[in-house]
Amino acid sequence: MRALLWDGAAIQVVDHPTPTLGAGMALVRVHLAGICNTDLEITRGYMGFRGVLGHEFVGVVDDGPPEWRGLRVVGEINFACGACEYCSSGLQRHCPQRQVMGILNADGALAQMVAVPIVNLHRVPQDIADEAAVFTEPLAAAFEILAQVQVTAETSCVVLGDGKLGLLVAQALHHAGAQVLAVGKHPAKLAILQQRGIRTATIPQWKREPADLVVEATGSGAGLAEAIAVTRPRGTLVLKSTVADSIQLHLAPLIINEITVVGSRCGPFEPALRALKTDSINVRSMISGQCALADAIDALRLAATPGTLKILVDCQ
Amino acid sequence: MRALLWDGAAIQVVDHPTPTLGAGMALVRVHLAGICNTDLEITRGYMGFRGVLGHEFVGVVDDGPPEWRGLRVVGEINFACGACEYCSSGLQRHCPQRQVMGILNADGALAQMVAVPIVNLHRVPQDIADEAAVFTEPLAAAFEILAQVQVTAETSCVVLGDGKLGLLVAQALHHAGAQVLAVGKHPAKLAILQQRGIRTATIPQWKREPADLVVEATGSGAGLAEAIAVTRPRGTLVLKSTVADSIQLHLAPLIINEITVVGSRCGPFEPALRALKTDSINVRSMISGQCALADAIDALRLAATPGTLKILVDCQ
Repeated sequence: MRALLWDGAAIQVVDHPTPTLGAGMALVRVHLAGICNTDLEITRGYMGFRGVLGHEFVGVVDDGPPEWRGLRVVGEINFACGACEYCSSGLQRHCPQRQVMGILNADGALAQMVAVPIVNLHRVPQDIADEAAVFTEPLAAAFEILAQVQVTAETSCVVLGDGKLGLLVAQALHHAGAQVLAVGKHPAKLAILQQRGIRTATIPQWKREPADLVVEATGSGAGLAEAIAVTRPRGTLVLKSTVADSIQLHLAPLIINEITVVGSRCGPFEPALRALKTDSINVRSMISGQCALADAIDALRLAATPGTLKILVDCQ
Repeated sequence: MRALLWDGAAIQVVDHPTPTLGAGMALVRVHLAGICNTDLEITRGYMGFRGVLGHEFVGVVDDGPPEWRGLRVVGEINFACGACEYCSSGLQRHCPQRQVMGILNADGALAQMVAVPIVNLHRVPQDIADEAAVFTEPLAAAFEILAQVQVTAETSCVVLGDGKLGLLVAQALHHAGAQVLAVGKHPAKLAILQQRGIRTATIPQWKREPADLVVEATGSGAGLAEAIAVTRPRGTLVLKSTVADSIQLHLAPLIINEITVVGSRCGPFEPALRALKTDSINVRSMISGQCALADAIDALRLAATPGTLKILVDCQ
C-alpha cells in the first residue's frame, strides 16, 4: 500500500507493507485523513516517532471480525493493553503500555490502510459525511475539556488561539452553554465562530478581562503568558496544545492567584460524533484544502503555512 | 518603634512611625515574628515591595476595640476590601484591592507593632506557646492544600523539598491521613518527619514512583521538573513555592499525562490553630534559632543559609 512515512530524517510517500492483523484488530481502508499540528511537530522531532504519520481518519473496515466488515468507522488513537490499573479504571487513554496511532509505536492513518483495535472503533452514522467524520478525533480532544472541567451558563471562557483546535474548543464550550470569547489573529478564522454566534476578538481588539476558564490553544510561550494573565484568581487554565519545545515561564502568578492548570489531551468520541450528527459544530468551514495521498508532502507543507486550517488527504 | 525596613535597596533596623489605626484595625504588640523565604525573595526584588518586612507573627492587641485589647492573637495577612465580588464569595484572600502584610502595600510584623484588620485576627488558645503560634500562618498555607485538593487514606503523596514549607506540608497531608513520602536533601530535616511516622527519602535514596498527589516545595526549576515526572497520569501537582524568577519548563508531559497543576498560597487559620493546639504538627523542632529585633539583619542572613529552618525574631 502507499503511505506517508517519516523515518526520522525525511518524509515521503512510499510503498509500505499492508498491516498484518493481530488478535482484536481491524484493517481499515482509509477514505480521508486529516493533518494535525502534531504531525508537523513529529517531523520536527516530537515524541521521537518513526513510521506512518496520521491519526485523524474515517474509513471502512476491510478486514477483521465479520460484524465490522464494510462498516464506516472512525477510531480512537490510543491502543491500550486493556489489563493494567489504568485500563481497569477507565483510563485506557493513559495506559502506560499504550501505542498511539501515528505518534507512538503504531503506524498511522496517512496511508491506504491502517490497523486499529476493534475496541477503538466507532461506527459513523450515515448522516455524517466523510468530510465531517474525519474531524471526530480532534473534536473529541476539544470535548475532553468538558470531561475534565465543569462549565455552566455562568462560566466565562476565553479561548486563546484561532487554529484548528482553538476553533473546535470554542465551539465545544459554546455548545455546552458557556459564555465564550475566542481570541485570535485571523479575522477569517474567527468569522467561522461568529457564524455560530460566538463572540470573537482579534489580539488588538481584545479587551482583557479575567475569565473563569481560559483555554490555551496557541501552543506558544507568549500565548501561555497571556492565558495565565487573564485567568481569574481561583480560575482554571486548560493547556490544549502539545509543544515539543520547552518554554520560559514565570510561575508566581499561578501560585498567587491559585490557578488550576489542567493538561488536556485526547477525548471521548461519542459526544463528538453526536455533535457532528446534529451539525452543532461547524467543521466543514474549517477545511482549507484536500489532496490525494500521492501529494501528501504538499499537503503537509500547506498545513504548515500560516493561515491554513484543516488539510484533508484523500487516501482512496 | 523599631522595625526591619526594606527600602528597595537596603535592609536595616530603623526607627519607624508606629502605625496609626484606621477604622476596623487593631494594633498588635508583636511577641515573636518568623522569617519566611518570601521575606528573602522580597529583598531580591519579588513583588517590588517597600516597607516593614514580615508576615508571620504572634502578639497581643495593644490598641483597637476594647473586646480585643490584651488578647493574644495571630493574624491573616491578606487585608481585603470586604465589598467586592471576591470578598462576597468568601475569597477575601483573592480580593483584587487587597494589601498583604509585609508583601504588598502594608507594613509587616518584623517590628514592635503591626496594624492588622480586626477581621483578620484569631485568638490564640492558651495552650499554644508563642513559639508554636508563630507558625500559624505558614501552617495555614500548608493546610490550604487540603482546602483545594481532596485526599483520602488511599492518596499517595510525594512532597518534594524539606524546607520549612515542605516539612509543614508533609505533616499536614499525613495528619489528613494520606500516604506521604517526603523527599529532601537534608537527613536532619527529614528526621523531624520520621519522628512523626512519615516516610522520607533523600534524593539519592529516592525510588521514583508515580504518585496521585505531588507537592512542589523546593522552589527550583529542577524540583518542578522532578515533580512533573513523578505525578501519575491524571494526578495532581500542587505548586507551593513562590519563586521570583521565571523558569524553563517542558510542558508536554503535563498535557500528555493530563496532570492538574494547582497553585496554592495562603490558607485557613482555624485548622492550623486546631492542629497546633493538639500538637498534631511538630513545629518546635523546626526552630533553628531565635534573636532580638535589633539583630534581625543577622536573622535574615542566617535564614538564608542552606540547612537552616525557621528563624524567629523576638520583637518585644
